[in-house]
Amino acid sequence: MAFLNDNYLKLKAGYLFPEIGRRVKVFCEANPEAAKRLIRCGIGDVTEPLPAAAIAAMHKAVDEMASRETFRGYGPEQGYEWLRHAIAQNDFRDHGCDVADDEVFVSDGSKCDCGNILDVLGARNKIAISDPVYPVYVDTNVMAGHTGAANEAGAYARLVYLRCRPGNGFIPEPPKKRVDVVYLCSPNNPTGAAASRAQLEAWVRYALENKSLILFDAAYEAYITEPGIPHSIYEIPGARECAIEFRSCSKNGGFTGVRCAFTVVPKSLMLADRHGGLHPLHPLWLRRMTTKFNGVSYIVQRGAEALYSAEGKAQVAALIRHYLGNAEVLRRGARQAGLKVFGGVNAPYIWVRAPRGMTSWQAFDKILNEANVVITPGSGFGSQGEGYFRISAFNSRANAEEVARRLQQPSLGLS
Amino acid sequence: MAFLNDNYLKLKAGYLFPEIGRRVKVFCEANPEAAKRLIRCGIGDVTEPLPAAAIAAMHKAVDEMASRETFRGYGPEQGYEWLRHAIAQNDFRDHGCDVADDEVFVSDGSKCDCGNILDVLGARNKIAISDPVYPVYVDTNVMAGHTGAANEAGAYARLVYLRCRPGNGFIPEPPKKRVDVVYLCSPNNPTGAAASRAQLEAWVRYALENKSLILFDAAYEAYITEPGIPHSIYEIPGARECAIEFRSCSKNGGFTGVRCAFTVVPKSLMLADRHGGLHPLHPLWLRRMTTKFNGVSYIVQRGAEALYSAEGKAQVAALIRHYLGNAEVLRRGARQAGLKVFGGVNAPYIWVRAPRGMTSWQAFDKILNEANVVITPGSGFGSQGEGYFRISAFNSRANAEEVARRLQQPSLGLS
Repeated sequence: MAFLNDNYLKLKAGYLFPEIGRRVKVFCEANPEAAKRLIRCGIGDVTEPLPAAAIAAMHKAVDEMASRETFRGYGPEQGYEWLRHAIAQNDFRDHGCDVADDEVFVSDGSKCDCGNILDVLGARNKIAISDPVYPVYVDTNVMAGHTGAANEAGAYARLVYLRCRPGNGFIPEPPKKRVDVVYLCSPNNPTGAAASRAQLEAWVRYALENKSLILFDAAYEAYITEPGIPHSIYEIPGARECAIEFRSCSKNGGFTGVRCAFTVVPKSLMLADRHGGLHPLHPLWLRRMTTKFNGVSYIVQRGAEALYSAEGKAQVAALIRHYLGNAEVLRRGARQAGLKVFGGVNAPYIWVRAPRGMTSWQAFDKILNEANVVITPGSGFGSQGEGYFRISAFNSRANAEEVARRLQQPSLGLS
Repeated sequence: MAFLNDNYLKLKAGYLFPEIGRRVKVFCEANPEAAKRLIRCGIGDVTEPLPAAAIAAMHKAVDEMASRETFRGYGPEQGYEWLRHAIAQNDFRDHGCDVADDEVFVSDGSKCDCGNILDVLGARNKIAISDPVYPVYVDTNVMAGHTGAANEAGAYARLVYLRCRPGNGFIPEPPKKRVDVVYLCSPNNPTGAAASRAQLEAWVRYALENKSLILFDAAYEAYITEPGIPHSIYEIPGARECAIEFRSCSKNGGFTGVRCAFTVVPKSLMLADRHGGLHPLHPLWLRRMTTKFNGVSYIVQRGAEALYSAEGKAQVAALIRHYLGNAEVLRRGARQAGLKVFGGVNAPYIWVRAPRGMTSWQAFDKILNEANVVITPGSGFGSQGEGYFRISAFNSRANAEEVARRLQQPSLGLS
């Protein structure tokens, strides 16, 4: 008799975004007129066209596939050398971070990497996540059997939840008790907060003292505007001994539909076997990628490479400016509506306190029904997200301005 | 202290193809002149340009990404509906197989799917593989902790090895003892054998009787030329209750560098939890894909869709004819060299008995050194592959003819 993985049966309800999709669909079917003016600020998905440099590079790559002389079959599973080099040089070495080309593993998504990294980690690790948190960190650990069952509030046994609140700037402090693996996301999804150098130094110190592993998700790095905020965990001395970094082309180059990301695994990072013997993680991840993955599409890798050309960099910078401009419009609009607003300065997300004791889903339904705007309920990111909602700045400027206006409309009564 | 997944430490040596790559590199560096005439018939990688229909479709898709009105961000993780429909209709329903659109999950590779499917299977399953076998089936089970350690011959404890030999046409019979999960690959990599209807009927009967799960790998389906050989496991009544099927655009459309594949999970397929309660696998796989994957590149999905257009089908058929023509040239050449030859009729692989008691690696080294041809040693696929080697027909016609000639050169002394 074939058996399934029972851990999947522990998973609570649907993943957050399908549930949002369901409610929006119900609303649109019931209100076809209002549906026409719907503006989506829910899922963190880019809206603007790809940089012209990436378009040109992908056309060229498609043409190469049309001729026997330039055709490409299987590439290296971990990515072509020219892309790994462009990434290591531009994203790390040019900023003083010590990352070698072959420490960069090109993949088809940060979401994939965040889940797949668990393949090479043992089941006995004590795992810490922030609360609120990107749900994928939690759900993939549940699937891998690294947790117990969920309680009524949706918290899973054996996971350590680190509270993120206005008091700590939504960046968790290292816990008093030891954890083996910790997920840190900065700039943060969903709160838009970015960790300071001192905060990351404290985490690296903690990880080195406890021989813990930091899984550092820097998918929104390109949105950092304030000086002094680290763009990479490898800006912190000692991080090469305790941290993996996830990055993506999704939110800078607009590659959410194109699919390219990468993970840095330093060769100096050691993990313990069950007898306490230390082994470098790099060859294990390499083995995982060569065995269970076949590399990112050649066409896509050429598109990603083009993001590092001079034109590509300028075009990416213009995209980021556009979305951060939206963020400023939304911040101002929400504040003028009398709402308490966080984030949006180093990230494309605004984190908003729902007014007058409303729950997150109450705010979601009210804003959907009365302003015809889709936001993301904060409680979908964890118990500490209850009473908040997230507004995504991924949109056209006209839509961002319209959302800012609608949030202030008296009939909505947010203020 | 962060712990690694100890199961990775059980993995034997390198994956087969990296070891071949290493030996070829050593040879080429030591023999720069001979390296110039090297012909690669090792790794099963296509060599001919993409079908023109796919090229045109991908150019159009790239252009769509350059304009706000037609830009695509995140798509459905399980694939766009138009591609799932094209697949289910053309590959299955048009051939009388009952497969619904939403039972098709589009992915970035069959290798990935073969490994990832273990995410949703329990650790207590008794797993059977063929010997010889595509190494990914084995290694991914080792990584997932479904095996014990390897013995000196490289066989892992707790895996059930099903011997494939000339006597059973290299298609294993169902075993006497119960297994919970069995991998079947037809047409077969590496032996080039294809399972008959009677053989698959026996397997489906076995699976239904034992409530076992068949993982049916049909990546080479397009190469079937003999009438009566099933192209899909769903041609066999009852398969919807016991089988998953893996398919790929790699070997028909030449997408090895483009990356698109798919897996069929019938909604009628039930697996047991640890208490014996039955659950459909479909929602578990959907949850796995939506949580740990972000869909195949939009551009690539449009390319895959074009393979199902009238021109696309004709162009794919021409590619298959080309490679099967190579296979016939290679079969004839190897036979005329006095070798015992299998496969190559319903598959792009020729499976050859090494002469006079040579081991697989001895044959590999001899053919590399003296004929400057790269083949794949059969022992890399399992202990029953010892004494065989695989020749890939993925090449230009000129190269296939040249390899056929070289195999017959008297100095090589194969005959």
